[in-house]
Order: sequence, then structure tokens, then C-alpha cells
Amino acid sequence: MERVESYASFGGTQEVWKHRSEVLDCEMKFAVYLPPAAAEGPCPVLYWLSGLTCTEQNFITKAGAQRYAAEEGVIIVAPDTSPRGEDVADAEGYDLGKGAGFYVNATREPWAAHYQMHDYVVDELPALIEANFPVSEKRAIFGHSMGGHGALVLALRNPGRYASVSAFSPIVAPTQVPWGEKALGAYLGDDREAWKAWDATELVATATERLPLLIDQGDSDQFLAEQLQPERLVGACEEVGHPIELRMQPGYDHSYYFIASFIGDHIRHHARALKG
Amino acid sequence: MERVESYASFGGTQEVWKHRSEVLDCEMKFAVYLPPAAAEGPCPVLYWLSGLTCTEQNFITKAGAQRYAAEEGVIIVAPDTSPRGEDVADAEGYDLGKGAGFYVNATREPWAAHYQMHDYVVDELPALIEANFPVSEKRAIFGHSMGGHGALVLALRNPGRYASVSAFSPIVAPTQVPWGEKALGAYLGDDREAWKAWDATELVATATERLPLLIDQGDSDQFLAEQLQPERLVGACEEVGHPIELRMQPGYDHSYYFIASFIGDHIRHHARALKG
Repeated sequence: MERVESYASFGGTQEVWKHRSEVLDCEMKFAVYLPPAAAEGPCPVLYWLSGLTCTEQNFITKAGAQRYAAEEGVIIVAPDTSPRGEDVADAEGYDLGKGAGFYVNATREPWAAHYQMHDYVVDELPALIEANFPVSEKRAIFGHSMGGHGALVLALRNPGRYASVSAFSPIVAPTQVPWGEKALGAYLGDDREAWKAWDATELVATATERLPLLIDQGDSDQFLAEQLQPERLVGACEEVGHPIELRMQPGYDHSYYFIASFIGDHIRHHARALKG
Repeated sequence: MERVESYASFGGTQEVWKHRSEVLDCEMKFAVYLPPAAAEGPCPVLYWLSGLTCTEQNFITKAGAQRYAAEEGVIIVAPDTSPRGEDVADAEGYDLGKGAGFYVNATREPWAAHYQMHDYVVDELPALIEANFPVSEKRAIFGHSMGGHGALVLALRNPGRYASVSAFSPIVAPTQVPWGEKALGAYLGDDREAWKAWDATELVATATERLPLLIDQGDSDQFLAEQLQPERLVGACEEVGHPIELRMQPGYDHSYYFIASFIGDHIRHHARALKG
């Protein structure tokens, strides 16, 4: 593991590291923000999952999260959005392949050889973080768009693993929208039954843990009607009594200007759960 | 004048506009953040001048300024760093020509035809802003690196024009450091006496207005020793009793992570002067 970037930020340090991932069979980068409190003792870790086309850089340069993480004493880890490197399969278009891992474990070639992002984010990366940084055993997870889908699915698939979960403009029903149908079809094959294990709206129906879902969604988001459709998840939650708060934010779009406007709310939400 | 970008941000709007500049004889873009208070009445305007290589985009995506501008009810205008377009002179290297206007009025060709950034930032752009946005008559100015130099020089050259001025990691003595010698030599010619009218350290000696100078400087800034040398300005201020506060920030570098960490302090500083 090698540190490739380091910047003083709000009294703490914003770092970027690279390492060899066994699960993904390639070299990966991740970002980690260490708040001032990390110099004095273990801090809980909040994982951020980014959306389509992003690397570990977008969140750390544009979200303005460091201020709130410093105030709350929370470490934030932001992985890349897919395996990387010349020998990793890719596709035309921004919504499949590199930059578009969808946080699933692919079962179909050419993807299965490297695209195991669920296991990377849930197991391998936390083990690496917990072995190398001053962290407590508490974890939470949030993300944006494809990464909001990732946060919801990873939390729902792994009860007890995360103290809290939230999402900005998430894909909530990938089995039923174009982005998800394309990605799940490629990574998992044609059997739509197999897709359901990666769909938050399907997963809440059988969730054994009632972890509250917090979602912020801009009502001027250009992807709202075709790709996001958060009302599907709200409906599924209402059917089984799963707690959810969907906050429709008037005038906001799908950009990091939206994320930055509400990232403080989310970090405080997670900090309460992580410290509770 | 045409609006080319618009995003909801912290209850207000982050916009980007393009217009034809007469002073620069080219098409220019500028960014303007309108806080929620601008919907209710005139707000004062804080001008941000960016550093080498930047456009109007760097500040609005990376500085995290919108939150504080929203809290304080201040409009922030961020112009580009040079004239733009195919018929505008340019040079090899990042530190001369496009992206490197140094906020001077060039007197030597091929630069003089377009590079009149002082007059653009001090006169033409504020007139445009004041004619088209809900602004009060109060103005303040700040900037980073080359833009920190710009903020200091424009405030010192135009007494009464700005209620306050501040800078992050500014070039304070361009007549005596490599970046400045290259730019002033190109834009103004070989007569070093003419350069002094664009050097903050020279200008404080004869300043008729005692506008306090606030400067934040990272002590791990890779350009500190060769290009920035803020102690030159502190020394010049001490000789004539000009108020200055230089805050050396331990561990911080020249990046937007540094700017973001202290932008709130600066915006609050300007808000006090603008509302006073």
C-alpha cells in the first residue's frame, strides 16, 4: 500500500492511496479523509460510493465533506467505482465497464474476472482500512446515483454491518430502469431473477434488519423520471414497514452542487448513528 | 449576455454566464453565486480572482464557498483569469498568456490588444453585474496565488473601490520573483520601473487608503520560497504602518484543499466589512 496524495484539510488530512486488490485482481486507488480527532484515537468510518464515470477524486474535490467530517470526528473512505487497468474488461459508453462497476459481484465473463466490487467494498477495503488507519469498529455507508444504489444494496445485503445508510439521487430499482438493466444484464447474465439480489426495492421486502433509509433527491434531476424513480423504493418500504425518509429537494439537480448542499446533513446523520 | 450554467446550491443559485467584453475584445465567461438573500433584495458583491491555469470553474467546484456565501448573504463573482478565444495571443507554458492574465493592463503587443484584465475586473465586469443582478453598491475582493496578487493590487490601485481585501498564498512582489518577472516583462516590456505599479509590495509604500490586508499562507506551499515570499509585503507594510495580518497555516499547501479550509473565515471577514 502506497500513499500517492496528501493534503492538509480542515485540520486533518485528505489522502489518496493505491494498493493491489486481490478480490479485483488489479491495482486500485482509494481516498481517505482523516479528521483532526484521528490523531488522538480511533474514529468511526463512513464509506462513500461514487456514481457513474467517477474515480476517488470527484468526491474529495467537489463535495465539501471534509469540513463536516472534521467537525464530527468521522473518517471518510471513498473507493473508485470499478476495477482499473489495461487488462480489465471495458465497454463503449459511460454506463458499463470501467467507472461503472455498480457494486455487484459479476458472474459473467469478461466481467467476472475483475468486477467484484461488492466484495471489495464490503470486505477487502474495510479490512485494509482497519489494519492501517486509526479506526473504530463502527461503519456507515452512503453514496450518489449508482453509488447510492451501491450504498442501499450493500447495507441491505449485509445486516449488522453498517450503523447507518443514506443516499443522494440513488438508482433504487436497477432491475427496472435502463442503466440497471444494461449493467445487470452484462454483469449477471439474462436471468432476471438473479438481478433481484442487487436491487434495493427487491431487497427491502425480505430485509431482516430495519435500518432506516435516508434519501435526498432533487426534483429537477434530469435522471429522476427515467433512471431513479425513488417512489418505487418508498412503496416497497411502506408495504413491509421498512423505515425510509425521502426528502425531495426543490430545484436541485443531479450534480455535486446538490450533494455539497446536503452533505453536512448526511454526515451528521451518520455521526449520530456511529457514535450512538 | 447569456446564462450557460445554473445549479441550485445551498438554497441559492450557482450560475455561469458568457458575454462579449469590449475591454478585452473577446467573449468571456464568469461565475456568479446568488445566495438565498438575493431573492429578497440587493446583496453586496465579493469578487474572487483565481490563480494560474484556472477558469471560472475551479473556484465554484472546489472551494466550498457557496455555503458561507449563503449564510452571510453575499454574492460571489468569479471571472476567468485571462481573455479567451482563438484570436487571443498565447504563449508556451502555463504562466503566460491564456489562463495567466495577471490582472494587469498590457502595454506591449501582441498582448495589449486583449490583455486588459485590470480594467475588465475593476470596471467592465462590475458594471455588468450591477446592471443585471440584485446587488448593492458594496464590493470586496479576494483571490488565490496570481489572483491573490490581483486582489491586492486592484484594491491598492483603486482606493475607495473595495470595502475589504484578502488573499490566499498570493504573489506579493511580482517584480522580484520568476512568475512575475516573466509576466510583467511580457505584458509591460523591459522597463522595470513600469512594473512597480503592479506590485503590491511597491504599492503599499504610497497607499493613501489604509485598507487592512488579510493573507493566509500555507507553510508547506511548494511555491512559498521562490514565488510567494509574503514576508516582503509584511516588511513593506511595517515600514509605512499599513495594517496587515499574515496567518501562516502549518502543514497546508497551495491547493484548493487549503483554500476550502479557510474560505469560510475569509467570507465572514468580507461580510463584516460589506455590512459595516
